[in-house]
Amino acid sequence: MTIPLPLFASTTETADGSLVLASVLLSLVVIYFASKLGGELSNRVGLPAVLGELVGGVIVGVSALNLLVFPGENVDASSSLIMQFLQFSDGLTPEAANGVFQAQSEVISVLSEIGVIILLFEIGLESNLKDLMGVGIQAVLVACVGVVVPFAAGTAGLMIFFGISAIPAIFAGAALTATSIGITSRVLSELGKLNSKEGQIILGAAVIDDILGIIVLAVVASLAKDGAVDVANVVYLIIAAGGFLVGAIALGNAFSKSFIVIVSKLKTRGDLILPAFIFAFVMAYIAAAIHLEAILGSFAAGLVLDENDKRNELQKQVIPIADMLVPIFFVTVGARTDLSVLNPTIPANREGLVMAVFLVAIAIIGKVVTGLAVFGQEKINRLAIGVGMIPRGEVGLVFLGIGSNTGVLSKPLEAAIIMMVILTTFLAPPLLKLVFPDSDTNLVSVNPDKPVLED
Amino acid sequence: MTIPLPLFASTTETADGSLVLASVLLSLVVIYFASKLGGELSNRVGLPAVLGELVGGVIVGVSALNLLVFPGENVDASSSLIMQFLQFSDGLTPEAANGVFQAQSEVISVLSEIGVIILLFEIGLESNLKDLMGVGIQAVLVACVGVVVPFAAGTAGLMIFFGISAIPAIFAGAALTATSIGITSRVLSELGKLNSKEGQIILGAAVIDDILGIIVLAVVASLAKDGAVDVANVVYLIIAAGGFLVGAIALGNAFSKSFIVIVSKLKTRGDLILPAFIFAFVMAYIAAAIHLEAILGSFAAGLVLDENDKRNELQKQVIPIADMLVPIFFVTVGARTDLSVLNPTIPANREGLVMAVFLVAIAIIGKVVTGLAVFGQEKINRLAIGVGMIPRGEVGLVFLGIGSNTGVLSKPLEAAIIMMVILTTFLAPPLLKLVFPDSDTNLVSVNPDKPVLED
Repeated sequence: MTIPLPLFASTTETADGSLVLASVLLSLVVIYFASKLGGELSNRVGLPAVLGELVGGVIVGVSALNLLVFPGENVDASSSLIMQFLQFSDGLTPEAANGVFQAQSEVISVLSEIGVIILLFEIGLESNLKDLMGVGIQAVLVACVGVVVPFAAGTAGLMIFFGISAIPAIFAGAALTATSIGITSRVLSELGKLNSKEGQIILGAAVIDDILGIIVLAVVASLAKDGAVDVANVVYLIIAAGGFLVGAIALGNAFSKSFIVIVSKLKTRGDLILPAFIFAFVMAYIAAAIHLEAILGSFAAGLVLDENDKRNELQKQVIPIADMLVPIFFVTVGARTDLSVLNPTIPANREGLVMAVFLVAIAIIGKVVTGLAVFGQEKINRLAIGVGMIPRGEVGLVFLGIGSNTGVLSKPLEAAIIMMVILTTFLAPPLLKLVFPDSDTNLVSVNPDKPVLED
Repeated sequence: MTIPLPLFASTTETADGSLVLASVLLSLVVIYFASKLGGELSNRVGLPAVLGELVGGVIVGVSALNLLVFPGENVDASSSLIMQFLQFSDGLTPEAANGVFQAQSEVISVLSEIGVIILLFEIGLESNLKDLMGVGIQAVLVACVGVVVPFAAGTAGLMIFFGISAIPAIFAGAALTATSIGITSRVLSELGKLNSKEGQIILGAAVIDDILGIIVLAVVASLAKDGAVDVANVVYLIIAAGGFLVGAIALGNAFSKSFIVIVSKLKTRGDLILPAFIFAFVMAYIAAAIHLEAILGSFAAGLVLDENDKRNELQKQVIPIADMLVPIFFVTVGARTDLSVLNPTIPANREGLVMAVFLVAIAIIGKVVTGLAVFGQEKINRLAIGVGMIPRGEVGLVFLGIGSNTGVLSKPLEAAIIMMVILTTFLAPPLLKLVFPDSDTNLVSVNPDKPVLED
């Protein structure tokens, strides 16, 4: 007897619900597979895992395998291999498939946004306000030079040499300002240079750069939403961004104490993580509601909650949640990126490639000069400090993802930015090894979970 | 100068995206608040936290505050306080608000389904196949009696005395079969009876009941989807459900070893949790694709992964993820429940109330008799074993949530089932204390994180 295997029934009203769930489950499987495979391969060749997650996303996305695609111009359910599979197995009509495709994309997009909210919450938790104050003026100078020079040179260059209009040029310039605290600190730890003087200044500057970058991002994203550069709005946004962050931190100490009092009274599961997430999500909502970006709120929430004695436990609990949700963000950013515009055999694409070369040059030069801002330190390795600021990593991707969502970036510019992020992230570990000549660690075999200690 | 505070711009195409994110963030804040407040209050009066999460959901949902509502008959964006707030702050048109409301509800629904998938994965991880075998025939008998008696009596009684048609009656009967392993084990631990002979049999039977219940659920849910009782289909489903679970477990040992080999080679973040989730989500997808329920797949995945030496680490990492996602399920189940149908002042509601009384009686008697199935144990406390099987807890809610999604349950019957789940869960801890007269633990002040040990 042959037993028919009816897959999801598609006639009742509940079928759509289970089809949406099925397509989300398959999408998550694809995302996790791409993230793990890419991350591990990247790690094996001595590069940050995040780079591999992004490349994994590019491979499963619209540039190659079409497993994970998002609705857009000329893109509907028939472009998605996952939807084609579900259509085949369930005999869905194209209209029904499009409905499921829209719902699935909405769910994955929100999950990826929650992923980046949690990533920035985690970065906030890792950043220590007091250490940051202690590193002092050196780190602030390095960070400021590293924001101003790439932003000004990048934005001006794109407008003058490439005729890009102000908003997308500013977005690209903003993406150039980022420094990945995650990648920088991991590479320094792998080289055994985390506690060197150069390492301290790089780390401090990367933390400050994160804050400056988020303010820049909030300003730029708002400009992109409003479609024009409005000076009053810029001033309002700078005040709002700065005020929000400073206010959150100023209130932080008092809040942090009430948080501990509340949490210590709770006895049931989720006693620490749920109050923390309520705080982070409320802050993210407020940041978004006053026209900043949601991630600014969760970053501030992380910074505030960093200052209490539940911090270690909270960080420990956030790690698996970040491990589950953050890859959705990175893989989605990669998947949304249409690298085909960089194909040099198509004449129209050459502009994008030239832009990518320009952006990479600005990205490297603009950060290497930051070492010159260090003063009063005779024997300091200025080149190492500058090189340490190069990797854009996940912070650059945050800029790209938000710019991409606003729709202001042209495809060649978007691809040029992702090339810049990939190349700076890719080049930083070998370059850092080169400029720290006394480091004898073999980058290839380093396990990031067991950082090599200083000798 | 008065600075205008424009909330989310609603004119561009990207605004919808940030409005959906904003409404999801606000919904999550409401869910976490309801879950924590309800869970903690419930815990303070000596009841399981999960009961409070459910009641918290009822309070924020369609029965009371209307903060968390889902689209349906007579329910659109104007019914949701969160959507009203966003409409007010952004000047959305009712059509745009309905679009955001639909997308937000879709996201929260999928998150709650992922939550229950992870809950069953965690229950699978907690259930130990070998211990389960060791408890032996006693536990199997108790579990079988506890499934057959309430199912038969409940289904027959609803059809005969209340004229309910077969499918919804079977669904209600199936909900009566559940035993909450989580609640049972926690209450036993609170009473210091986890390692008594009665405790062992209750626990073993609850584990087996979980497996039987999931098979019953899969069968019943499929019947509900097809709209009729089809004997060939029932046989196919029993074979599929049993075969799926047995096959997964039989292959489990080999798979578990490859899993360890793969995981031990991974070096980047998420090295354990992402492969585990790939497995759990693939199994959930397969279970759903062969017409069973997705949760059956994740439960089998948890059982399989239980059998290896990464288990403790995996369980530790799943806890914060479950803490974040599982409450979305419980609160959503509560929020979807319209308790107003149990209002006795409306004459039409009296049938629902009478059904609730009948279901509660069957729920208690049908489990108390299971103690009689124990043989060859002279001094055993049969009453305690029967009472230990009473709480339906999260497993009963899984049945209710799935029944509710299929749309076959009438509102009075749905409310009667939730009353049954609430009352059995509510009554079990004080009743258990009563039937274990030698337990001297004060239930009220017990901290579940610090279980009272046996004296």
